[in-house]
Amino acid sequence: MPTYRAPVADVVFLLNDVLGWERHANLPGFADASPDVIEAILGEIAKLAEEVLQPLNLTGDAEGCTRRPDGSVTTPKGFRAAHDAFGRGGWIGLAADPAYGGQGLPYTLAAIVNEFSASANMAFTMYPGLTQSAVAAILEHAPEAIKQLYVPRMLAGEWSGTMNLTEPHCGTDLGLLKTRATPSREGAYAITGQKIFISAGEHDLTSNIVHLVLARIDGAPAGTRGISLFVVPKFLPGPDGGAGARNAVSCGSIEHKMGIHANSTCVMNYDGATGWLIGEENRGLNAMFVMMNEARLGVALQGLAISEVAYQNAAAYARERLQGRSLSGAKAPAKAADPIIVHPDVRRMLLEIRAFNEPARALAIFTALQADIARRSPDEAQRRTAEDFLGLLTPVLKGVFTDYGFENAVKAQQVFGGHGYVREWGMEQFVRDARIAMIYEGANGIQALDLVGRKLPRDGGRAVMTFFNEVGAFAKEHEADAAMAPFVGPLANGLGDLQKATMWFMQNAMAKPDNAGAGSYDYMRLFGLVALGWMWARIAKAAMAKRQAEPSQAGVMDAKLVAGRFFMERMMPETALRLTRVTSGAETMMALPEDAF
Amino acid sequence: MPTYRAPVADVVFLLNDVLGWERHANLPGFADASPDVIEAILGEIAKLAEEVLQPLNLTGDAEGCTRRPDGSVTTPKGFRAAHDAFGRGGWIGLAADPAYGGQGLPYTLAAIVNEFSASANMAFTMYPGLTQSAVAAILEHAPEAIKQLYVPRMLAGEWSGTMNLTEPHCGTDLGLLKTRATPSREGAYAITGQKIFISAGEHDLTSNIVHLVLARIDGAPAGTRGISLFVVPKFLPGPDGGAGARNAVSCGSIEHKMGIHANSTCVMNYDGATGWLIGEENRGLNAMFVMMNEARLGVALQGLAISEVAYQNAAAYARERLQGRSLSGAKAPAKAADPIIVHPDVRRMLLEIRAFNEPARALAIFTALQADIARRSPDEAQRRTAEDFLGLLTPVLKGVFTDYGFENAVKAQQVFGGHGYVREWGMEQFVRDARIAMIYEGANGIQALDLVGRKLPRDGGRAVMTFFNEVGAFAKEHEADAAMAPFVGPLANGLGDLQKATMWFMQNAMAKPDNAGAGSYDYMRLFGLVALGWMWARIAKAAMAKRQAEPSQAGVMDAKLVAGRFFMERMMPETALRLTRVTSGAETMMALPEDAF
Repeated sequence: MPTYRAPVADVVFLLNDVLGWERHANLPGFADASPDVIEAILGEIAKLAEEVLQPLNLTGDAEGCTRRPDGSVTTPKGFRAAHDAFGRGGWIGLAADPAYGGQGLPYTLAAIVNEFSASANMAFTMYPGLTQSAVAAILEHAPEAIKQLYVPRMLAGEWSGTMNLTEPHCGTDLGLLKTRATPSREGAYAITGQKIFISAGEHDLTSNIVHLVLARIDGAPAGTRGISLFVVPKFLPGPDGGAGARNAVSCGSIEHKMGIHANSTCVMNYDGATGWLIGEENRGLNAMFVMMNEARLGVALQGLAISEVAYQNAAAYARERLQGRSLSGAKAPAKAADPIIVHPDVRRMLLEIRAFNEPARALAIFTALQADIARRSPDEAQRRTAEDFLGLLTPVLKGVFTDYGFENAVKAQQVFGGHGYVREWGMEQFVRDARIAMIYEGANGIQALDLVGRKLPRDGGRAVMTFFNEVGAFAKEHEADAAMAPFVGPLANGLGDLQKATMWFMQNAMAKPDNAGAGSYDYMRLFGLVALGWMWARIAKAAMAKRQAEPSQAGVMDAKLVAGRFFMERMMPETALRLTRVTSGAETMMALPEDAF
Repeated sequence: MPTYRAPVADVVFLLNDVLGWERHANLPGFADASPDVIEAILGEIAKLAEEVLQPLNLTGDAEGCTRRPDGSVTTPKGFRAAHDAFGRGGWIGLAADPAYGGQGLPYTLAAIVNEFSASANMAFTMYPGLTQSAVAAILEHAPEAIKQLYVPRMLAGEWSGTMNLTEPHCGTDLGLLKTRATPSREGAYAITGQKIFISAGEHDLTSNIVHLVLARIDGAPAGTRGISLFVVPKFLPGPDGGAGARNAVSCGSIEHKMGIHANSTCVMNYDGATGWLIGEENRGLNAMFVMMNEARLGVALQGLAISEVAYQNAAAYARERLQGRSLSGAKAPAKAADPIIVHPDVRRMLLEIRAFNEPARALAIFTALQADIARRSPDEAQRRTAEDFLGLLTPVLKGVFTDYGFENAVKAQQVFGGHGYVREWGMEQFVRDARIAMIYEGANGIQALDLVGRKLPRDGGRAVMTFFNEVGAFAKEHEADAAMAPFVGPLANGLGDLQKATMWFMQNAMAKPDNAGAGSYDYMRLFGLVALGWMWARIAKAAMAKRQAEPSQAGVMDAKLVAGRFFMERMMPETALRLTRVTSGAETMMALPEDAF
């Protein structure tokens, strides 16, 4: 059975030594999050993740969710108690407004909690994650009465939330959606239609489920400009605010999926269910987009989370499994064979994973911090830059982290040989669970289009220029530092490739948009490499300083420097290949007639 | 539910137009395999694959195999009848010696049958595939009486075969194996021990199961030089040669796996079971190695097979699924949305798959043909060259085709968005099934070590030099041909990278074997790209000729030329990245202490 240890020390190092957490102490809520407090909070969520959530991961996958004939859905054994503990611990509302029962702590902390929790049990973590997204939409757009009615119960884990977008004939293209909303009594609407792929649509973890539903008000314009957002509870709130009469929404079936078996994925039928408008009429997509950055960051963190737990288990197996001898002579001659970690190719697989995990965690925290700054900073220029970074990096993190998360789960599984293919070791579950993160919350190809088609050109390219300037300045600042040369040289090369690819789009994609589409995915991966490389360079600088200042940390810091060099030597050069693909353009791929595919 | 059409026309084109099948008409057995006969045979297996095997794939996965309390194992509904049809059709013994009930046709044809069958139903195809491997070992090494007793029944599909190598503590490192063989009456042995991961170890498809078992004869030397090979039938042959008394071998449990659910993977317990020696005492590994090339080619074909069927379904979905609009303006303005095949990124995913499938099929057939030549040619020099190619290319095909097979199944699944994650569409099964091919029959890291550590240096590098000369000569021959320039230029570049990587090993891996281990996997992938590129160049040449000679084929041939250019523009340049990784050496990855992982 797999195990998990939350990387608390690594997070503390990243916050304090790499990302300069203390520089943000002036932000509202950050004063309460001193390094000591953070370490205590992380220790608590680590304990919950390791001791409560992780032991339910393999069993939850095997048991899965079951829909009963009455339409109710049973989650795996232990999930309800774990969800209660998660809610009671205040984890759902960690970063939410204290006026509605939240703790008001930085969103950055909530992101870290999300990583730990998803490493321990991704399918479980989706339940509170969806509640958090629904709360964000309600707090941003709903009338005060709705906020007060729903949010405190949701943050306490008594009620949960869902997002209802997809319909059988439309996923990415929401303009096609058909669910109708007909005005009924006292400002309410009757919602009718079918939604599919609704995560946590029905379950037995909470006493009520709060569905946020995209629908078209009678007479609304066709397309994306006629979509509104509604709150549709499973049980209508009664006079005391608690769950009252059953609403006309039900789970028609649950999907049989490749993974995340412990999370119920439902077909939801709305048969004139009562709902209330959230935000403006016909502006439902905008209301949804507000929370999209955080939801996408949450999915990106799932990629990192699986990559981390898969690494931990593969490294442990590689240290213990005896098989064969080192190519350079026996390393454990007293034993029947050497541990397989002596083999370079096993180390290659492990280091490819780890060389992603560490800068990815840094980049996730950096990006989450931008969300905090964008929302909380009193300084407008600082807010604007943070918003630029957040908008630019969110599709990169979603697309790139979930790709690596899956690829790394596959590599970690490979370390186990045949045992990796068998359920009891848990490695194949990581692969199956990680796979969905590349698809939901906008498939990775859509993230790439968002990056290239929307985020790059926005405001005359201001965000991407800021990014280039930041990374370039870091490389420039350290170019004369011999110790930093193994990091800064490759980073500058990668940045150069990214700039060339960006320039190529400017010159070739305006007149021919297919050139943008044809290169978008490779551009996103190229961008990810440069952003990860930037984080590696910053980690390396901090690690060199720390091993001087704290000799007891030398071993840990040296390991980081090795993993960072591995990234720069073997992974960063991929930028050249990605650039070649971007600049090869769309011509060949558009030359094939549709019916010749 | 997924569908499948066997690519008969493509195979015929490859055999006749690209690989010059008629040049081998002088080989024994080839005279019976004229183009007309081949097309008829392929039509028959296509029908069986499409109409019998493919409809059992999704249901077989859902039902899986069940072990009863008495140790018997039930396969999914329909499998027994399909297996009977497969045996009755003569498909198991297609290439086997007619003296024992085979049809004596070229092995190349059997390889093509294997591809079609595995596309339709990989889990099913493993049953006859294992029988074929066991038959090959028996025919090569067993005494005449055993051949006559077992082989005809196995080829008819009445009895089946298995390979018993792995034990709980040893997979790759067979020198550690503990199963004992104690001489008993009349030249027989009593076999005692436990084997794991035994595919088709127990099932209800045949009236007897013939286990080939590696074990250590009492008093044999330790390590790999004390291992012998035994035939151990489930039922001891009775006086009439039919299945008689039950032998002391039984299935202790079956594994719960990520995929290939319809194939039973068993823990087999040998409790003094009666077995007979096959081949020489203590030379069991050598006896196994004889059939390893064919077994590994069979697994390589599984990679191609899944990639092909996944492509077919993804392309069909992309042509039908309406979602969003083309970046360059609506393509189907009368419909609610355009089919997603208008999007360059969808085409990218499809073309990345297809640009592998076509040259991979050519390379598989080329390599299988080398096996035929090596075994059947009267000319010693021709046999030697064919053996060189076969030995060199087998690990490349096994490692590279199964990697692409899995990666391509993932890409095809991505085309389906959320629907790809749901079982009923069948795409996620392709991913789960394809995954095992990277692991069994020697994990892909082991293939890379076989390539770099054994196949490259063998006979002073004769095989790899022959490969370089062949590819280089083709590039040289066509360098002045403007139409071939898009193919030959990139091929020459890729070959240059491969030669540099090979040279780097010669200069850096003799003294430091870890440098070979550290670069072996990337070298294997680099080798695969060049071999696939070589096939693309040959396909392109043949396609250009054919579109001139047969105008009705212009559309099909033009599609090949587009897919080939796509490969050269976007996939071949990966050789530079692989070379960079190879030449980065082992130093960084070996610098991390074991306990720092």
